[in-house]
Amino acid sequence: MSRRQLPAPELFQAAVNGDRSALARLLSLIERGDDDARTIGRLAYPLSGSGYTVGLTGAPGAGKSTLTSSLIGHLRAQDLEIAVLAIDPSSPFTGGAILGDRVRMQDHATDPGVFIRSMATRGHLGGLSLATPEAVRVLDAIGRKWILVETVGVGQVEVEVAGKADTTIVVVNPGWGDSVQANKAGLMEIADVFVINKADRKGVEETSRDLMQMLDLSDLPHDTWRPPIIPTTGTTGQGVPELWDAVLAHREYAESSGDLRERRAFRLREELREIVATRLGRRARQICSGERWDQLTDAVVERSTDPWTAADEMLAAVDA
Amino acid sequence: MSRRQLPAPELFQAAVNGDRSALARLLSLIERGDDDARTIGRLAYPLSGSGYTVGLTGAPGAGKSTLTSSLIGHLRAQDLEIAVLAIDPSSPFTGGAILGDRVRMQDHATDPGVFIRSMATRGHLGGLSLATPEAVRVLDAIGRKWILVETVGVGQVEVEVAGKADTTIVVVNPGWGDSVQANKAGLMEIADVFVINKADRKGVEETSRDLMQMLDLSDLPHDTWRPPIIPTTGTTGQGVPELWDAVLAHREYAESSGDLRERRAFRLREELREIVATRLGRRARQICSGERWDQLTDAVVERSTDPWTAADEMLAAVDA
Repeated sequence: MSRRQLPAPELFQAAVNGDRSALARLLSLIERGDDDARTIGRLAYPLSGSGYTVGLTGAPGAGKSTLTSSLIGHLRAQDLEIAVLAIDPSSPFTGGAILGDRVRMQDHATDPGVFIRSMATRGHLGGLSLATPEAVRVLDAIGRKWILVETVGVGQVEVEVAGKADTTIVVVNPGWGDSVQANKAGLMEIADVFVINKADRKGVEETSRDLMQMLDLSDLPHDTWRPPIIPTTGTTGQGVPELWDAVLAHREYAESSGDLRERRAFRLREELREIVATRLGRRARQICSGERWDQLTDAVVERSTDPWTAADEMLAAVDA
Repeated sequence: MSRRQLPAPELFQAAVNGDRSALARLLSLIERGDDDARTIGRLAYPLSGSGYTVGLTGAPGAGKSTLTSSLIGHLRAQDLEIAVLAIDPSSPFTGGAILGDRVRMQDHATDPGVFIRSMATRGHLGGLSLATPEAVRVLDAIGRKWILVETVGVGQVEVEVAGKADTTIVVVNPGWGDSVQANKAGLMEIADVFVINKADRKGVEETSRDLMQMLDLSDLPHDTWRPPIIPTTGTTGQGVPELWDAVLAHREYAESSGDLRERRAFRLREELREIVATRLGRRARQICSGERWDQLTDAVVERSTDPWTAADEMLAAVDA
């Protein structure tokens, strides 16, 4: 039997035993989000919980992937095993265009201590928001202690997903990228650590002052943890050890304060809510078919009724 | 009574009569997505249907806003009244950073023939995907014949929203932006017209060839409408008349072929499905509360059960 046909539980066992291509296949099943994904989720769930997730987000072009690559190097030098989940459509990890970065990644790709995976979730009903925690849990269950989740810091879902890590790094550039500027409210909310990447350029101090001012003005409870601001140069690795120290400091704070436990419990409750909502969504799809549905949608298209009245009718039919 | 306290139906009437600040207030209510939004939606629905929506999307930095600004100038020169809905977090329309662009926008902002509005949908349960068509319908109902919807071409929801226009323009740059490159499958699917903006740079011909090759390889039914490829320079306005001609040509094709009618009917059905799903989601929030919910979530947090089993239990309780 080829690996492609192995049942999910056997694939999972193979992955736990260190089989990387079984792991890759498992993650493909997660992406598809069908019954196999649920089987895998159920197997992974009791084994997970010891891995630690680090989110990394920022505007396209902020240098996230180069920074991630430097970070991988730093962690590998300490013999830490890590997994990287890239769900940034602009990331070279996900098959993007920057050849140099991709080549740099290739170095890590041959290192058994690093597992890099890009996510595509077109089949998954719950989209990125449900597929990501499932994929993270598989990586956690097979024993990866550090899981990096890279997302692009634009897009409703993508920013949310980045904010659901144990520690979230927000990457900006000197002088602010315009994308970051515009989306700053969302990014401010989720940042545990700020990075000013490309710090070899002008404007690091002004950007740092801006960030500090924004932190002062924000109504987040920064008396307990105030996100440090770390200048880095991803291409040279400058500042990367300091960045990692900041992640470790945040982890220590989160663990000792009870924040981590609370955050994870909150996340699980949110995920459970989303699973319930997605199941109800599947039910909506069932509701939204058949003769009555056709009549109602025709009425909406012809403007003899409006979508909200039609929705009321469809839902009333279910409740009856 | 101040305008802020006017009931939604009176605000709507004022907007129909040309009151711009009433219109702005209406759109704020739409963004909040509460009962007022539904009232407005019901009022706007029967009056809408004659406006035509043009989506414009592409990677951050592709020059979408500058191009939009040039496009506005071109349309105003023909005395066409237009509305712009900017739901791109990196757009200067949404309060971004490029001062030059913002200044250029300001010119249009004092022109009564142009209405520019950015969207923030943090309160709206259905997010961008439901708030956008509602906002478009209000602009349509008050008599705007052309409605431009600008979104950033990264992010799951944002690309979908752009694809739901009557004509969708996808903006790329010579040599491809890396973001576009990575996300090209999604963008290829929704493009009715391609723009190679910043055409004063090198690489326009190669990019054009790339796009043509991708069109040749794609399995989209391009025998009926093949997206033209228009080089533009947003900063000078070069190519903008040709771009508009391409939009008009697509509109003519869509209207005469029946494609527009089909597309709009499909969109309405999708929207109705999403309204039903969102309502069910609200119900999920109700389900996901109470004593049984607390017990189940605690069990998930303590890993004595998994999220899928817990979801099954919650849903079974509803069905019983």
